Amino acid sequence: MSASRNGLPKRPAADVGETTAEVVEAAPDFLTADPRSHAQLRRVALATADAVAAARLQDQPFSGADPAQLAAAIATIDPCPDDGVALDELLAQLRDAVLAHGVHVSDPRCAAHLHCPTLLTAAAAELAIGVTNQSLDSYDQAPAATLVEDHLVRWLAATLGLSGGSGVLTSGGTASNLLGLLLARERAGARAAAHGAGVGGLPPEHVRWRIVASAAAHDSIRRCAAVLGLGTGCVTAVATDDAGRIDLGALDAELAALASAGLEPIAIVATAGTTDLGAIDPLAPIAERARACGAWLHVDAALGSGLALSPRLAPLLDGIELADSITADLHKLWFMPIGASALLVRDVALLAAVHHHSDYLNRPEDEVDGVLNLVGRSLDTSRRFDALKILVGLRSTGRLRMAAMVERLVALAAGAARAVDAHDELELLAEPSTVTVVFRWRPGGGEAPLPDDLIDAVNVAAQRALLRSGRAIVGRTRLHGRVALKLTFVNPLARESDVGELLDLVAEAGRAAARAGVAVR
Amino acid sequence: MSASRNGLPKRPAADVGETTAEVVEAAPDFLTADPRSHAQLRRVALATADAVAAARLQDQPFSGADPAQLAAAIATIDPCPDDGVALDELLAQLRDAVLAHGVHVSDPRCAAHLHCPTLLTAAAAELAIGVTNQSLDSYDQAPAATLVEDHLVRWLAATLGLSGGSGVLTSGGTASNLLGLLLARERAGARAAAHGAGVGGLPPEHVRWRIVASAAAHDSIRRCAAVLGLGTGCVTAVATDDAGRIDLGALDAELAALASAGLEPIAIVATAGTTDLGAIDPLAPIAERARACGAWLHVDAALGSGLALSPRLAPLLDGIELADSITADLHKLWFMPIGASALLVRDVALLAAVHHHSDYLNRPEDEVDGVLNLVGRSLDTSRRFDALKILVGLRSTGRLRMAAMVERLVALAAGAARAVDAHDELELLAEPSTVTVVFRWRPGGGEAPLPDDLIDAVNVAAQRALLRSGRAIVGRTRLHGRVALKLTFVNPLARESDVGELLDLVAEAGRAAARAGVAVR
Repeated sequence: MSASRNGLPKRPAADVGETTAEVVEAAPDFLTADPRSHAQLRRVALATADAVAAARLQDQPFSGADPAQLAAAIATIDPCPDDGVALDELLAQLRDAVLAHGVHVSDPRCAAHLHCPTLLTAAAAELAIGVTNQSLDSYDQAPAATLVEDHLVRWLAATLGLSGGSGVLTSGGTASNLLGLLLARERAGARAAAHGAGVGGLPPEHVRWRIVASAAAHDSIRRCAAVLGLGTGCVTAVATDDAGRIDLGALDAELAALASAGLEPIAIVATAGTTDLGAIDPLAPIAERARACGAWLHVDAALGSGLALSPRLAPLLDGIELADSITADLHKLWFMPIGASALLVRDVALLAAVHHHSDYLNRPEDEVDGVLNLVGRSLDTSRRFDALKILVGLRSTGRLRMAAMVERLVALAAGAARAVDAHDELELLAEPSTVTVVFRWRPGGGEAPLPDDLIDAVNVAAQRALLRSGRAIVGRTRLHGRVALKLTFVNPLARESDVGELLDLVAEAGRAAARAGVAVR
Repeated sequence: MSASRNGLPKRPAADVGETTAEVVEAAPDFLTADPRSHAQLRRVALATADAVAAARLQDQPFSGADPAQLAAAIATIDPCPDDGVALDELLAQLRDAVLAHGVHVSDPRCAAHLHCPTLLTAAAAELAIGVTNQSLDSYDQAPAATLVEDHLVRWLAATLGLSGGSGVLTSGGTASNLLGLLLARERAGARAAAHGAGVGGLPPEHVRWRIVASAAAHDSIRRCAAVLGLGTGCVTAVATDDAGRIDLGALDAELAALASAGLEPIAIVATAGTTDLGAIDPLAPIAERARACGAWLHVDAALGSGLALSPRLAPLLDGIELADSITADLHKLWFMPIGASALLVRDVALLAAVHHHSDYLNRPEDEVDGVLNLVGRSLDTSRRFDALKILVGLRSTGRLRMAAMVERLVALAAGAARAVDAHDELELLAEPSTVTVVFRWRPGGGEAPLPDDLIDAVNVAAQRALLRSGRAIVGRTRLHGRVALKLTFVNPLARESDVGELLDLVAEAGRAAARAGVAVR
């Protein structure tokens, strides 16, 4: 590749459309005020959109590619060849080797995880976020963006009942839970020592600290406890009722046991929408107990926060307004692209525990100019303008339509439960609370029953076979020690007929696995 | 707003272009195999690109809007009106109220932070990431994407000298540093107790643990130590030389002092590219010391990793191949949109310390299918397919061109230092090491000298006045206790003439502030 006058290697001619040295000099790698860079932005945006759309034409949720073959094909892609590859060639390759072997989140048979299709308007805003590249740590890297995020988190806090509250956006629910639990830990640290744990490290009292959560709380609660130095062992697993909600009697017993053992519940974590059963803990009674024992109340509403959009469903969240901190994932029931999570607090001053002075970012002199540097609220430094996509997605869709989508998902889950119940070979394992249905395959009424171990193996095999074939992606977990299958309804495009088709696919896969399993026995 | 047959409120007719109930039923909120949703994706992508480009026409890096007025204008935007707003109207509003009041990262007078313009191809890939919404925690949410990230982090590790190494992508350098330091803490925990700190929490020995870093290490090292329960107080501030590199004599003295005090250096953090001076610590000699005292070696190459692209500059990173873990931010000298960071390790097995078993994500039975669930490497759960934009950006640009851009930035900084030196009113405070120049305004040779306190105040006022006017965004920090200004060269479009213009703007602002300051005295 020859060099142009400015010493930069040329781009492939096809990318700039002209070949004179002047144009190469101005090759639009970046967006500037130059109209040629605008034309290039339009071109790359369209080419990317077309590649994505072309890879979406498949009529099943996944190609069913073999992992080893897929890995081998991807291994042949040189991440950084010496000379740039023309965009059309590059996108055609990624379309065929990568995008065509993703899971298609808008396919109704993609129903394993809390992993939603995304509003097109919000997804397009990702382009604006990427091109403008505001960094939310300091005002001088993101003036309007800082104010938009501040405005949005206040609205989110108010929408979830924390009127006058605020917060900060994070990259995911785990990061939001980490921040919420850090605030709880810092409050306990401030009680135990003159300084918080932030400066001096965990005080010796930390070995008596406990985080009280139910057995159905998200994995990330334990993982965050490990990160925070408290260890996974400090998180309790309070029993739940049949619907997966924390059992208040068990909670009281746990709190009493902690008290008599001289242990301190620094935080109670309530879950509004558990991962498997979608259950919502009884928030108001839990808040009462948190207040009584001086524990921080963190509500993990990663899933459930979306219910607040619907006046009909919002009462399910009653009591959330009593939280000290709330995790809300807008990349779940709000249909935003990952990452779009928020950690909300009833008072922005509570975030002061993460504030660190910095000579280059967080300068006290800036405050005279009325300048807000969000690094003082966040565990991150450089941070994307994710608030933009959320604002675009919400404003373009409107609350009524958002609410109707969430209502449809709850209705779909209820309908799916009835369909499972009515199915000869499927067994409903819990009544759905919100948007998930947990069930399993077992032999139909006319068949010989099978032992639970074999039913477990059949369900594992059925789920894996469906994924391998690409025909359906269903969730798999364990409930009361037994393998369970799970449908997660986060796709508002799904219809009841899709659910019926999905259940038939599962039943068929179960039958096939059982036949194979019984043959092997 | 009336409801369509499916019970969802209608979208504004302008968004779908037709008004029959059938079309409303199929209103393309999401991308499906339906060609109408493809058309909608193209439309929203182009409209978004046009809004971004129109907001970029300004000929200065920032509009200079007053923060209070900007906040008041943004406060009038309802984040979620009942009815959706037509996209064109919505984007026009955001263009004028938000995007036009961002900082323009491709303007050469935007030179405050490590906050780069982004490759258009990579920024467009953000659209693909958002629409396809793969979640990198489990293979069944991101089959090809999982393998692409795995491929990319191996390449990155090898490029930075960790051949056979691997890693995981994170949302930012702070998150990468957190993971690196967590691994160091877990190794120390495993030595101190039968289990790591992950399960049992920090053992009592933690009060003797120290993280050894220079005084110029990034803020996030201390902030991460606080998150990890070790406290900011556990991080040392070893003295640096004039160029901002860790002083090896001071390091040896610190290590000796720790040993004689019975304290344990669990990690040494070397910085490859400090925030203010861009300095690169002497990596190989530090690695020798880390090995000798059994400390984990973490290299924070958030800034410096981009030097590896250039055979001419890569030797500056000599010794990085001896690291246990490396932070590399691809949203800095690699010109990718935020967030694009990597935590790289010399052996993927080192990441096992963050692995937690999960019934629903990380299932041992999956391994028979050759399935990789990246949640076992990460502190996150839901996680974006950021690897895609990195791959697109690198492949479309090519290594030679990437390297030439980085080389240009280093040359620009060197040239700027000479121009500062030659300027009557500007004083160079340190020789540039990589891409930053730290200097200050002071009266020219013919003027009466001013006391340092007043010079500090003048430099603060000059930087703030430039930001307020929107004419230039320069960095401000402190060096040896005095206020310093900083230019950070991360924009490959900048030319020497731009640097000259920027320095003239600073000198003019300094003069104006000095006149005002002297008048007030």
